[in-house]
Amino acid sequence: MSIIDSTKIFKGNIIFTPTPNEFFTIENGYIVIVNGKVKNVYKILPEEYNDFKIIDYSNKLIIPGMNDLHAHAPQFRHLGMAMDKELLPWLNDYTFPEESKFKDLDYSRNVYERFIKEVWKQGTTRIAVFATIHKNASMDLMELFIKSGLGAYVGKVNMDLNSPPYLCETSEDSLMDTEEIIVKYKDKSPIVKPIITPRFVPTCSSELLKGLGELSIKYKVSVQSHLSENKNEIAWVKELHPTSNFYGEVYNKYNLLGQSPTLMAHCSFSSREEMALMKENNVIAVHCPSSNLNVGSGMMPIRKFLDNDIRVAFGSDISGGHTCSIFKTMIYAIQVSKLFWANSNKEIPFLSNSEAFYIATKTGGSFFGKVGSFEEGYDFDALVIDDSELNYFNYSLEERLERFIYVGDDRHILHRYVCGNLIEEPRSLIQL
Amino acid sequence: MSIIDSTKIFKGNIIFTPTPNEFFTIENGYIVIVNGKVKNVYKILPEEYNDFKIIDYSNKLIIPGMNDLHAHAPQFRHLGMAMDKELLPWLNDYTFPEESKFKDLDYSRNVYERFIKEVWKQGTTRIAVFATIHKNASMDLMELFIKSGLGAYVGKVNMDLNSPPYLCETSEDSLMDTEEIIVKYKDKSPIVKPIITPRFVPTCSSELLKGLGELSIKYKVSVQSHLSENKNEIAWVKELHPTSNFYGEVYNKYNLLGQSPTLMAHCSFSSREEMALMKENNVIAVHCPSSNLNVGSGMMPIRKFLDNDIRVAFGSDISGGHTCSIFKTMIYAIQVSKLFWANSNKEIPFLSNSEAFYIATKTGGSFFGKVGSFEEGYDFDALVIDDSELNYFNYSLEERLERFIYVGDDRHILHRYVCGNLIEEPRSLIQL
Repeated sequence: MSIIDSTKIFKGNIIFTPTPNEFFTIENGYIVIVNGKVKNVYKILPEEYNDFKIIDYSNKLIIPGMNDLHAHAPQFRHLGMAMDKELLPWLNDYTFPEESKFKDLDYSRNVYERFIKEVWKQGTTRIAVFATIHKNASMDLMELFIKSGLGAYVGKVNMDLNSPPYLCETSEDSLMDTEEIIVKYKDKSPIVKPIITPRFVPTCSSELLKGLGELSIKYKVSVQSHLSENKNEIAWVKELHPTSNFYGEVYNKYNLLGQSPTLMAHCSFSSREEMALMKENNVIAVHCPSSNLNVGSGMMPIRKFLDNDIRVAFGSDISGGHTCSIFKTMIYAIQVSKLFWANSNKEIPFLSNSEAFYIATKTGGSFFGKVGSFEEGYDFDALVIDDSELNYFNYSLEERLERFIYVGDDRHILHRYVCGNLIEEPRSLIQL
Repeated sequence: MSIIDSTKIFKGNIIFTPTPNEFFTIENGYIVIVNGKVKNVYKILPEEYNDFKIIDYSNKLIIPGMNDLHAHAPQFRHLGMAMDKELLPWLNDYTFPEESKFKDLDYSRNVYERFIKEVWKQGTTRIAVFATIHKNASMDLMELFIKSGLGAYVGKVNMDLNSPPYLCETSEDSLMDTEEIIVKYKDKSPIVKPIITPRFVPTCSSELLKGLGELSIKYKVSVQSHLSENKNEIAWVKELHPTSNFYGEVYNKYNLLGQSPTLMAHCSFSSREEMALMKENNVIAVHCPSSNLNVGSGMMPIRKFLDNDIRVAFGSDISGGHTCSIFKTMIYAIQVSKLFWANSNKEIPFLSNSEAFYIATKTGGSFFGKVGSFEEGYDFDALVIDDSELNYFNYSLEERLERFIYVGDDRHILHRYVCGNLIEEPRSLIQL
């Protein structure tokens, strides 16, 4: 491919966050992309690019795509439903029976196609998702993501303990199925990958956890799970693993806490030691503020994690969270951080807009590679925002971005790019 | 007008809350409206109506319209902006300079038209708004509401103290302008009315408060203001009015706390005595949870108000709140109530869906008359929800409503009615 063929030049209002502390903006500037990766951004396009065609998004906003680091794809049917049920009835009456239906591939495809369409719609370009225990449906979800052009880490869930009989595997099956998926999918796509996904400590035997850790190391596969979401859960883990000093130590013992790249969702009640270990092992703590507020289990003290140099990303956590939008998740994260701010007599600073944006883009993206920024070498994952409907009073670029986040919605996302490719709305296979 | 001319019959999935504790639903039932008021709802249409034309919304949801009891219309330009500024810089750098522009009628009309369009779009059929201190712009806002067909109580704001010089009146002017508006508008429209609106105690001299109370009684005009939103404000009021035992007592002393129908926004830190007085005087406490979370001043303990039989309504409080949607405000109210639930070891019950809906419709509506329900004699203020896009899995009616609230948006509001009249999208006068 010639340099001209492999190069794309975009013009528009460029906004991104190389650091958490401020937005980097260029008004009607240029982004040069070579082979799907950012070469550079320019206020004035260098002469060497004079002969290249320019993709013109003048006056629109060009921002990095959103990264969602925690979502339960099979709970999509229950999005925004049963929100006034408590956690246990919600799991037993809604979530577990629903997940059990995913043994049926027709059913799973129906839900997963709708889910991916919604992910696309909301401007999420990379996502880490939990599927269910079912091997075939999990692989189908990976196929659907590959077809979509979006980036995704998809986890077949592991549960061999403390689970309803209709949603429980043997340890052997669980490990065998997981390995089969890893072998089939680890090199199939550069941006859709398997991820090892013990649901959480209480639903996994020590044997299963041990096997999963071994698979993770053997195949260099990432890991995702839940950690310290609520106090009863922490007490339960302590009961199940009395020799462990804290929840995260159980994962760590079985090589599931940062021995390969690891996502841990919630961390609302992580102890000082747990946080120290997360930091040491470079684990990403995934903050799911909409879920925190809906479920009422607890809230991650995000500033504590940031102050301790622990990487923090955002998760929609549908359907504990009720929105797939990482933009709306940013708002919730800022609001939750303001609760800590207010409760500390304003001593714990709340998240600034640029910090929230940095978390949603650059930190979230760091799990997937060089993703989430427009610095040199980054994959060009981007959203083109047409906010003309909202921008009737000559707002500044930063104000326009803030208003799009707070007031706008998917209607204002004109185009979505992953690795430099324009991603079209996923088409349903079922309706074909 | 004949009985046939004055009668309208609607068919659809009827949902409303005669009581807070449960939804009343009829699947594809009928609502008979006579002269804009509900006559009755039926599962099967009585024979006497056989010859009437039916407005057919089969399979759609028909619900009462939303009532927004606290909003600052002139802050619409700042919706979803400067959300990471603290309260004082936000007021001094954004809100006050912005409000001062409303002395210019062209400017005010531009903002107010956009504001009303957004109110309409989000399904709010009745609203109580703060305008600015400016007489002409306030009257223009009333004219725009009259033209729109929506119900609105519009308050010219009163400020003669502790206000920036460019946004401050003399007490005489403030009272004279207020009275002029009242005289002009109190009988002009059945659903658009003036409301007396001291900004809050610190910006009003005792002379002004006294005069406003007198106007309220003389003309039987309602009152709205802010109360006990944050601790510094409460301390400031105490300093300004050292003989008052609590904040609300100042309003009460000047006949501005329930001597006529009264709305008090926020009440996050109302004392036991203040709440007792609100109850005694039948004051409506307006909960603005999105604003509570954005501003971080405090959160209204809504259950305490409900338990004490104080009427509670919802307010968007734009632009402290970032959404005009009372549906999204319901979600925030439930979430904030879950914080109190979690912090009380689950002893303080969070808001149920039906409670939140009841507050948004029937309690909020009670300020405007018989509004917010489909019981006999109620004004037919209604929204027709076409949620077919969200309803792909045979959800129950209550689940469909919940999903529309959590996941849906204005795209799913097919039609809006006020007093039985279909309300079209407001057309801009400026663009004509």
